[in-house]
Amino acid sequence: MTERKNIAIMGAGLVGSLLSLYLAKRGHKVDLYERRPDLRKNTLDGGRSINLALSDRGWRALRGIGIEEDVRKVAIPMHGRMMHDEQGNLTFQPYGKEGQSIYSVSRSGLNAALMNLSEPNPDITYHFSRQATDVNLRTNEVQLLNLETGNPENIQPDLLFGADGAFSVVRGAMQKTERFNYAQSYLEYGYKELSIPPTAAGGWAIEKNALHIWPRGKYMMIALPNIDGSFTCTLFFPYDGEQSFAAIKNEADLMAFFTEVFPDAVSLMPTLAQDYFSNPIGSLVTVKCFPWSYEGKSLLIGDACHAVVPFYGQGMNAGFEDITVLDQMLDSFEGDDWEALFEAFERRRKPNADAIADLAVMNFIEMRDKVADPRFLLRKKIEARISQQFPDKWIPLYSMVTFTDLPYSYALETGQQQDKIMKKVMKHIQSIEDYDKPEVQRLLEKQLVQKEKLKKYNAAMEV
Amino acid sequence: MTERKNIAIMGAGLVGSLLSLYLAKRGHKVDLYERRPDLRKNTLDGGRSINLALSDRGWRALRGIGIEEDVRKVAIPMHGRMMHDEQGNLTFQPYGKEGQSIYSVSRSGLNAALMNLSEPNPDITYHFSRQATDVNLRTNEVQLLNLETGNPENIQPDLLFGADGAFSVVRGAMQKTERFNYAQSYLEYGYKELSIPPTAAGGWAIEKNALHIWPRGKYMMIALPNIDGSFTCTLFFPYDGEQSFAAIKNEADLMAFFTEVFPDAVSLMPTLAQDYFSNPIGSLVTVKCFPWSYEGKSLLIGDACHAVVPFYGQGMNAGFEDITVLDQMLDSFEGDDWEALFEAFERRRKPNADAIADLAVMNFIEMRDKVADPRFLLRKKIEARISQQFPDKWIPLYSMVTFTDLPYSYALETGQQQDKIMKKVMKHIQSIEDYDKPEVQRLLEKQLVQKEKLKKYNAAMEV
Repeated sequence: MTERKNIAIMGAGLVGSLLSLYLAKRGHKVDLYERRPDLRKNTLDGGRSINLALSDRGWRALRGIGIEEDVRKVAIPMHGRMMHDEQGNLTFQPYGKEGQSIYSVSRSGLNAALMNLSEPNPDITYHFSRQATDVNLRTNEVQLLNLETGNPENIQPDLLFGADGAFSVVRGAMQKTERFNYAQSYLEYGYKELSIPPTAAGGWAIEKNALHIWPRGKYMMIALPNIDGSFTCTLFFPYDGEQSFAAIKNEADLMAFFTEVFPDAVSLMPTLAQDYFSNPIGSLVTVKCFPWSYEGKSLLIGDACHAVVPFYGQGMNAGFEDITVLDQMLDSFEGDDWEALFEAFERRRKPNADAIADLAVMNFIEMRDKVADPRFLLRKKIEARISQQFPDKWIPLYSMVTFTDLPYSYALETGQQQDKIMKKVMKHIQSIEDYDKPEVQRLLEKQLVQKEKLKKYNAAMEV
Repeated sequence: MTERKNIAIMGAGLVGSLLSLYLAKRGHKVDLYERRPDLRKNTLDGGRSINLALSDRGWRALRGIGIEEDVRKVAIPMHGRMMHDEQGNLTFQPYGKEGQSIYSVSRSGLNAALMNLSEPNPDITYHFSRQATDVNLRTNEVQLLNLETGNPENIQPDLLFGADGAFSVVRGAMQKTERFNYAQSYLEYGYKELSIPPTAAGGWAIEKNALHIWPRGKYMMIALPNIDGSFTCTLFFPYDGEQSFAAIKNEADLMAFFTEVFPDAVSLMPTLAQDYFSNPIGSLVTVKCFPWSYEGKSLLIGDACHAVVPFYGQGMNAGFEDITVLDQMLDSFEGDDWEALFEAFERRRKPNADAIADLAVMNFIEMRDKVADPRFLLRKKIEARISQQFPDKWIPLYSMVTFTDLPYSYALETGQQQDKIMKKVMKHIQSIEDYDKPEVQRLLEKQLVQKEKLKKYNAAMEV
């Protein structure tokens, strides 16, 4: 049994709150410090409910603290993508096999649920409206400003976790240490949240069990269902250029643009102009850094060390998986060498964090452009057939990321191999029926033999 | 003619000092602010003279202000690499064609020469011992601390240039602006400066006109000649591991290690232990960022926006080329739209800055490992033959970078094409004589035809 520690978690968002439960379970005393006030006491700001896609890695972490079933009750399964073309025609593409779905959940609802679960625990204490103003990594002292009283406070935990998101203050302190590797990169796109309200009857105005996409090549809009019948729409749009945030100067510009390119959506969005001109433009940043820990006293986790763009729906899931992995490592942790533990953790997670960051950027192109292409959709169908025929030899990349706990880095690498094979196969394919042609089957079997060989070779290299 | 501006340059190093001359030539008033005291008034610290490799891009920028000939007098040509193996055997590999050399120059000597040239200019004023403590990019106000008097000072130039190096304060301010892309990455290697003194007769203890390399696979030492007969040696060494800075704990460790792996050097280094234990370990960082300017009021230049590791000897040369390019753009600059000018400049230079950063990291592997391989040296000889036979179709990568002003990004791309061709050619080569074999000549001609086609195709794509 390891010694009981006084642990401070900076940030009481999804990752911080879930982490507190895992750490308290192991006998540690946990204090969480959050810059914002308690989101459960806040009046809803305009009824907007920002949602997230929860998938297998996230569920697994929730299962570990027994909250899976409660969350499932308020999560909406999305079985696939529903594409809307410029005439309002719909095309559906399932995400995985029968029964495989991602789930739309409310960020604040899930966060509140995690807080409600952890707060009664005598070993967990939430401190809201606390802004970290200075972090001394050498002494583990953190200076806080109590935003309610205006008074400074000072803490000095045994262990400090930075779960404070993409603009982490703890990471800011690490950036000032020697030889810290750091990268922040922004897409030339921003996002704007919009909404589709429930119907008069209180139902969903478009298919409930799908993630809706209006793919338009250089930009796109998506919509995820909420439990109250509404949808949260997000427009991903260039900052500058002919069709961009900069080009839309007034309501007339906005309505003309939406009516032309999102005709079926615009009639469902009565508050479009109001939403558009009152909501801010969000930026899309990828953050990579290394190391994630400092002298066994502090550790970054979640977005604080690997913020990703939202296009694979894996930001929260990757943060939750950090916790699952840390918890697994704590299973076999003895003694008090947290430095070795943190270093093993960051070495294990870093390649996977890098992989999902790159996958997320790549998926933006797929979502905004390729899903509108019939050849691409045919290819997805062919790949589903391959996976059906060879279930132990082929899992599509999206499924590896979303419906398994295979390492993201393995998924990325295997996905690239499969992509090469698909390019060869698709040369012989004009329709789904072509899949059964002898030459396609022969090519596929030959390619799969090579893929297996490569896999064994790589496994041998890793030994 | 554009309006005369009050310009502040942060940093009076090589790039800042040279830039002041170019800007004053165009009629602007220039003030330079430098954190350090005037290096010309400083007593020499222990006689150490840090040197740099000056090559064509650097010479070109010096030529533009008429200082080329003065610098040549104190620069030592290095015609190629002299490799020292573990038995002390020597192998020489020329850098380019007959007459092509890089030049070892003293950093402080060159800096002093630039200062001496600019200081008499009534439009140029140096302010030493001024530390920038805060930069307000919106107002262009800079707060300085006068390190001699301890008093704060405040300036507000029309234009602010950040020539303040890898840890630039001006860039630090840009990092706090919206959507600033930034990356700093460190090698797992540090460096330590050592020295070989002049011989008793006052000459050079090893070949004067070469850059000496002791390539040892995972680490290396290099030595560049100084005008006083000494050499400055630099050990590039892992921070951690079996053979590393961490592993050398005392003089006995040091002497045993050097005697084993650098036997011919150790006898020439009487102050080895003293140098090793008193000089700091330097870190090796690559910095990339974008944009380089803010609202047409401030611009980063040199290391401040593209610090590179030293293995291509191009850090200073790339910074000087920034100035050449900016000066060319100023030739056709009319009116007062500095924002458009700075944006055009950063767009043009960024791909080249990225390319030299990547090339510099790649060259580390070449220097510490490949130059010890006879196959690699044979390949270099074969490549020299190709370049000789087809001078208008083939310039070796090293020569493009070092002896031309072709864009670094073009050099990198062309170098990668040539690398593929060399791999094919080398399959047929066991000795230099094999170059004349008919099958080698046929293969080469076929590959060169393809290379030219690709070049035309790429050029067409760029239109």
